Amino acid sequence: MTITITAFECSPDRGRGLARDILVRWALEETGQAYDVRLVTFETMKEPAHLALQPFGQIPTYEDGALAIFESGAIVLHIAERFPGLLPADQNGRARAIAWLFAAVSTVEPVIVEREATGYAERNESWYEQRLPLLTDRIRVRLTELSNCLGTADWLDGDFSVGDLQMVSVLLRLKSSGLLEEFPNLAAYVARGEARPAYQRAFEAQRAVFLASQAR
Amino acid sequence: MTITITAFECSPDRGRGLARDILVRWALEETGQAYDVRLVTFETMKEPAHLALQPFGQIPTYEDGALAIFESGAIVLHIAERFPGLLPADQNGRARAIAWLFAAVSTVEPVIVEREATGYAERNESWYEQRLPLLTDRIRVRLTELSNCLGTADWLDGDFSVGDLQMVSVLLRLKSSGLLEEFPNLAAYVARGEARPAYQRAFEAQRAVFLASQAR
Repeated sequence: MTITITAFECSPDRGRGLARDILVRWALEETGQAYDVRLVTFETMKEPAHLALQPFGQIPTYEDGALAIFESGAIVLHIAERFPGLLPADQNGRARAIAWLFAAVSTVEPVIVEREATGYAERNESWYEQRLPLLTDRIRVRLTELSNCLGTADWLDGDFSVGDLQMVSVLLRLKSSGLLEEFPNLAAYVARGEARPAYQRAFEAQRAVFLASQAR
Repeated sequence: MTITITAFECSPDRGRGLARDILVRWALEETGQAYDVRLVTFETMKEPAHLALQPFGQIPTYEDGALAIFESGAIVLHIAERFPGLLPADQNGRARAIAWLFAAVSTVEPVIVEREATGYAERNESWYEQRLPLLTDRIRVRLTELSNCLGTADWLDGDFSVGDLQMVSVLLRLKSSGLLEEFPNLAAYVARGEARPAYQRAFEAQRAVFLASQAR
């Protein structure tokens, strides 16, 4: 039985590690699982065959035998529950790691993605420049809280876990913004995540797909 | 050992069921668990004692003996894993229910909450009226996809699960918007969720806290 995920044939981020199959690739690399990738285009993503796997017409999806699921957070959690390496052994530590996964998805990511989405959809609107500081300050509030909580620790709660994998992935979306640099402990936290060999393999595998799309 | 959650002493939604302890109350009611509630104010939420439980200074939190976690999605999932009633017995069905929980949190809720947040923070800005249709259309895109996927089914994947609990809770945020009525199968889905006795008990318990705060 082979694990198969979906990813962009030609990612709009030009291989910079922002398409969300990166989370699934990273989790599979951390847990030492081989996987196949089925590439989709913006057209095939909206066709019935893909919508049957992913009702919102997005990537990634995850198939393993009779199981098919979607949502990067859910896939990453499934991998963490199925294979050792991303969740602590004790039940309370496990629940706390999952709480951090949700904090990344539900509390930190939305304000970051909103600023990105505005950049795509409203850059030519008269209000764009005026609203940008509001959006940036909303991110700063969350980063301040997260920075205070992380303090001098390496990871959010004990050893590296699925919560860190998700949080680092979310914070990496800020890489070109300069915002992480305002919080040196968060910048170092993200750098620790990026330096993990499993992340490096995931990043290079994702980037190779984009580079191949450009070589055609 | 008693389960203790936190909730607003005086909820800004005036007891309309939107404060996120409703999800935790609902999950505890569905699984037949008794619980205590510790009320917090906007001031105490930002104090060290609460931040130690909830790094972003929000509600709800969940304590059970030595375990303390935060994030409503994580708490609801923990309850579903710990007590029977909110997850199917088969492993693949379980993973799919969790995927729907993440879809609610990560794909559907952000566009709904963004429209709410704009209403609070930017109502007096010159661009507010012009942007509102953009925000509403983003919600419509998600509702269309969700409606297509639900079709004529009662619940998202087989029996009522933690995924439905989270999705119905998210969609209930649209109750006063008129948007749900554009998608009759989603309006009926939300009504089925609201009609559950466990939801009714959770709603009334949350509302009673607000009413008590007004009676003082």
